[in-house]
Amino acid sequence: MDYSKKSLELHRKTRGKIEIKSKVSLKTKNDLSLAYTPGVAAVCMEIGRDRQLSYTLTNRASQVAIVSDGTAILGLGDLGPEAAMPVMEGKAIIFKEFADIDAIPLCINSTEVEDIVKFCKLIEPSFAGINLEDIAAPRCFEILERLERELSIPVFHDDQDGTAIITLAAIINACRLFDRKLNDLHVVINGAGAAGIAIAKLLIHAGLKEVVLVDTKGAIYSGRPEMNRIKQGIAEKTNRAKYQGDLKSSLIGADVFIGVSRGNILTEEMIKGMNDAPFIFAMANPEPEIMPDRAYKAGAAVVGTGRSDLPNQVNNALVFPGLFKGLLKSGITEVTPEIKMAVAFSIAHSIEPTRDSLMPTAFNKQVVTGIVDVLSGIQAKKATAE
Amino acid sequence: MDYSKKSLELHRKTRGKIEIKSKVSLKTKNDLSLAYTPGVAAVCMEIGRDRQLSYTLTNRASQVAIVSDGTAILGLGDLGPEAAMPVMEGKAIIFKEFADIDAIPLCINSTEVEDIVKFCKLIEPSFAGINLEDIAAPRCFEILERLERELSIPVFHDDQDGTAIITLAAIINACRLFDRKLNDLHVVINGAGAAGIAIAKLLIHAGLKEVVLVDTKGAIYSGRPEMNRIKQGIAEKTNRAKYQGDLKSSLIGADVFIGVSRGNILTEEMIKGMNDAPFIFAMANPEPEIMPDRAYKAGAAVVGTGRSDLPNQVNNALVFPGLFKGLLKSGITEVTPEIKMAVAFSIAHSIEPTRDSLMPTAFNKQVVTGIVDVLSGIQAKKATAE
Repeated sequence: MDYSKKSLELHRKTRGKIEIKSKVSLKTKNDLSLAYTPGVAAVCMEIGRDRQLSYTLTNRASQVAIVSDGTAILGLGDLGPEAAMPVMEGKAIIFKEFADIDAIPLCINSTEVEDIVKFCKLIEPSFAGINLEDIAAPRCFEILERLERELSIPVFHDDQDGTAIITLAAIINACRLFDRKLNDLHVVINGAGAAGIAIAKLLIHAGLKEVVLVDTKGAIYSGRPEMNRIKQGIAEKTNRAKYQGDLKSSLIGADVFIGVSRGNILTEEMIKGMNDAPFIFAMANPEPEIMPDRAYKAGAAVVGTGRSDLPNQVNNALVFPGLFKGLLKSGITEVTPEIKMAVAFSIAHSIEPTRDSLMPTAFNKQVVTGIVDVLSGIQAKKATAE
Repeated sequence: MDYSKKSLELHRKTRGKIEIKSKVSLKTKNDLSLAYTPGVAAVCMEIGRDRQLSYTLTNRASQVAIVSDGTAILGLGDLGPEAAMPVMEGKAIIFKEFADIDAIPLCINSTEVEDIVKFCKLIEPSFAGINLEDIAAPRCFEILERLERELSIPVFHDDQDGTAIITLAAIINACRLFDRKLNDLHVVINGAGAAGIAIAKLLIHAGLKEVVLVDTKGAIYSGRPEMNRIKQGIAEKTNRAKYQGDLKSSLIGADVFIGVSRGNILTEEMIKGMNDAPFIFAMANPEPEIMPDRAYKAGAAVVGTGRSDLPNQVNNALVFPGLFKGLLKSGITEVTPEIKMAVAFSIAHSIEPTRDSLMPTAFNKQVVTGIVDVLSGIQAKKATAE
């Protein structure tokens, strides 16, 4: 099916995908006097006395900002902030449909770390959380680190942590399906951008046996020349054998392939060089690293991609609605590795996996409610401990 | 009626007044593939090739940011950005109800001119216009001037120009009702903040005979010591007689009183000192400078206030929905004095004024359509002239 043409037609017809809706009636003079002046003054004064009341007297408690600079839009790269808007509006309606969260797309006119950090600090009083989106590596790492430190509302970069969580969920369900253990797995990740680095970090935290990142120059190892600070950091924690080589040779002896870079770069021969019955997650968009039929032919035990028109879609849209719903409801402000792991387990266990249905669909309501319950539980335990 | 209590109840019940609504269906996998990945990639690429297409392929064309720092909330002063949100949400639902514009409240965490200017420049790609709101004078003047210069989308500070336009509309209808001429009128404005200064500028542009601004130190005149740059500027253009004195003595011989400062400061005696049958616009909120019954007793020809529960409400809500609708529809990006005058005349002429019904109500649909038609006409003439 030609999604491109049909999607363009849809967007031309509806002129975008979101609009504002009033939660109160505005049909009489009395309505106006309560929703606006003079009545509203009392509401402003209440919040002026206690700013926390903005969470009960305004829409803030269910309001999330989706902030992007448009530098890493899907797999398309830097197309500018205006061009990022269709993705952000898409995320906004997913937030609303699946978690009743009101997400506001804010695509901004600067790619400077300082500007993006400043921007998020400026809008903090209007929102309960910030979803960073499609900001290119390595800037996205510094931006997220700084905002986690400097803001008191939760911040989440979907391209990093959303992808990491859903990838871990996919590996968990592959393990359940084939009776494997996470800590026996040797994983190779192709792509060392926002997603690849975040996936590596979470998989290490989850106790996987070995994680090797591969970029265009081959395997990342400690001491490799000319790496940025982020790659230097992850090199210390991955590839303990300090293996040096290209993707093909890096894959020898691996149990899991994770692709988060360019499409069409994984061959049947490479899969044959992996351990028996490997898990293949070819998540490049829109073209996967290898098509499922060829991966299965080469011996894959299970194959997932990023595409909605193939089985086993490994998709961030399973993560961010429930995660934010859970954060906002529980009052958790920091998305720690423990939270990410708990969310991944919750998503995975929302279904009984099969080879052609490894992951829940976005329409499975258990996904959001499961995450919300898990985060509420974590917060309740923490409250008891304190 | 106790609007305060009822308004608080309403806000507690609804937890704010706005929410996001999807304009497209999101019930099937196919819906997701068109609104989000993979289909949305084609839409992003189209806009990447031509950024202007964000006006037809996203909601941008009907999207306005309401930006406030919360330093001059209604008549309440500086209560901080969280406390400004109920007013901004109120404006947002008025925008939607009366003009089908999707306005996003953004209350920000800084009162620095540089930060607010920077913020508006950062969000420009996501919006078709910016409505500044409740930003205190004199900073608001510099912010508006800079943004008018530095942005290519229209910017409007409602507390300045919205108030100026609706005040001019009220004076126009008072003139129609009592067969007076604008250029015969001597006006005294009490209050030299954002609203007072903007009203003075527009009334001078409209050709009124004399305009005198009065602040807490009395009449503003050229050469008065210790005035900020903004007051120095307006002193050159007003009070040509260089009258020095308090409000009471300044009012002697005036035809129009405009109050945009504190309530309860205009006495019957002061009105008696004015010319016969003066126009009294006592617009301080929530308490007017004088209540209408007392003003009429002292000889006023007509009295307007800012209150919705009294006759002749002189209210910005008559201006901003139609003005933005007109700007977005016509493509006009600069709100010149000519535009402001045209909008004021259009609002005034949407009804036949009477003494107890000087102004149209917010529910009069002719107000918005009239402004839209006038701005389209101006733009069409401009296009023909070029």
